[in-house]
Amino acid sequence: MSIAVAVVGAETPGNVGTIARAMKNFGLSDLYLVDPPDLDPDGEAYGFAGQAREDVLPNATETTLDALVERFHTVGTTAVTNEDARKHVRYPFKTPAELADSLAGVETETCVVFGRERVGLTNDELAHLDEIVSIPASAEYPVLNLGQAATVVLYELRDRTVEATQHPDAIERASQREIEGLHGQFAALLAAINHPKGKRDKAERLFRRVVGRAHLTPREARTLRGIFRRAGDFAEPPDGDER
Amino acid sequence: MSIAVAVVGAETPGNVGTIARAMKNFGLSDLYLVDPPDLDPDGEAYGFAGQAREDVLPNATETTLDALVERFHTVGTTAVTNEDARKHVRYPFKTPAELADSLAGVETETCVVFGRERVGLTNDELAHLDEIVSIPASAEYPVLNLGQAATVVLYELRDRTVEATQHPDAIERASQREIEGLHGQFAALLAAINHPKGKRDKAERLFRRVVGRAHLTPREARTLRGIFRRAGDFAEPPDGDER
Repeated sequence: MSIAVAVVGAETPGNVGTIARAMKNFGLSDLYLVDPPDLDPDGEAYGFAGQAREDVLPNATETTLDALVERFHTVGTTAVTNEDARKHVRYPFKTPAELADSLAGVETETCVVFGRERVGLTNDELAHLDEIVSIPASAEYPVLNLGQAATVVLYELRDRTVEATQHPDAIERASQREIEGLHGQFAALLAAINHPKGKRDKAERLFRRVVGRAHLTPREARTLRGIFRRAGDFAEPPDGDER
Repeated sequence: MSIAVAVVGAETPGNVGTIARAMKNFGLSDLYLVDPPDLDPDGEAYGFAGQAREDVLPNATETTLDALVERFHTVGTTAVTNEDARKHVRYPFKTPAELADSLAGVETETCVVFGRERVGLTNDELAHLDEIVSIPASAEYPVLNLGQAATVVLYELRDRTVEATQHPDAIERASQREIEGLHGQFAALLAAINHPKGKRDKAERLFRRVVGRAHLTPREARTLRGIFRRAGDFAEPPDGDER
């Protein structure tokens, strides 16, 4: 599935650059501009685009909203939704996460459409688009800046657009054998420091809960075990019947 | 639970303003600045802050990283993680969504710490922080702009910080009675237009699937039903044994 981005009537070149950068960060490349501002190669659009100044931004296509509606499944973005079904230009709507879920497994050419800095997309423009997406934000101040709104929506769509992230597949976790080895060493330490016998079981259970929640890496388990061994070897507690 | 935000060594006032705006959009208010740039009330920080120029930005506190570490559960942000457990300054890490989940139900004062535009937080700074968060992005270009990275992280934390969003609680859905009424009207329309009798069941099933996936609002169900009724009333198909 491919997802394109369109920006309608942006006034600030910097916002177009910010959107281009977010596109590259989240694996998108097709940018369409309707009534764009002048994008001077030495100006803010290219200044804000990061590495997208090399491809996404110079390859952007100037077009019309009608041409986009004809070609794509269009999704309009707005901070201002309608409250109920009596007005249906901005209702119903999906959140960005719901949009991402709903596009999973659907073979479509989708275009997410962002509007102007101050007024967003007009009702007339939204009326032509296929569905509406709106970012949940604080009721006191739900209007995100254009570039920030685009960043959030493209972030949510990343599972559809990013082939491989910069992250390793999963966090390495110590094997259960290594974890049990650490607990054995902890018990040995309690004995070596002459921790009161009646309290050792409780202390071991407490430490098991801490380690259980933290999901140690192999190195963390090994390092802690080594430290406990050394602490036990060097312990010279006062003699007593507890030892 | 309260969540604060700290920005360490930002060079661009505009990014500080962008972060302040995202904070206000997602219900946060406590901003800490370590080695901030000059924030001229007529400059870019205030220009980019939107309504946060009224409170979040002017109320920001200048402090040190040590003071933050002492007071808060600190979460450092970085695009560049380590690959495995042999290096543990940037490993293990959580994604922003995992961070949000892990903070649910924990009573803590947390501070999310963002670093410099070009180099982020240094290894020495990250070493002092309690945990690491990293935004999954394209392996080809995973480095988000500072303001955009903060926007994504604060967006993911919204369930912890936003009391009420601008959205209605749930999308109004037509009652099943209204939906069945629509299907009854659709069946009547098929009869009125003399749709081939042998194909009517199939057409009704097809329409049931479309409506079933779309989750109509009450108004949508009512409007379509009215249109089908009118279309049936006005239908004058050629007579035939199918009618």
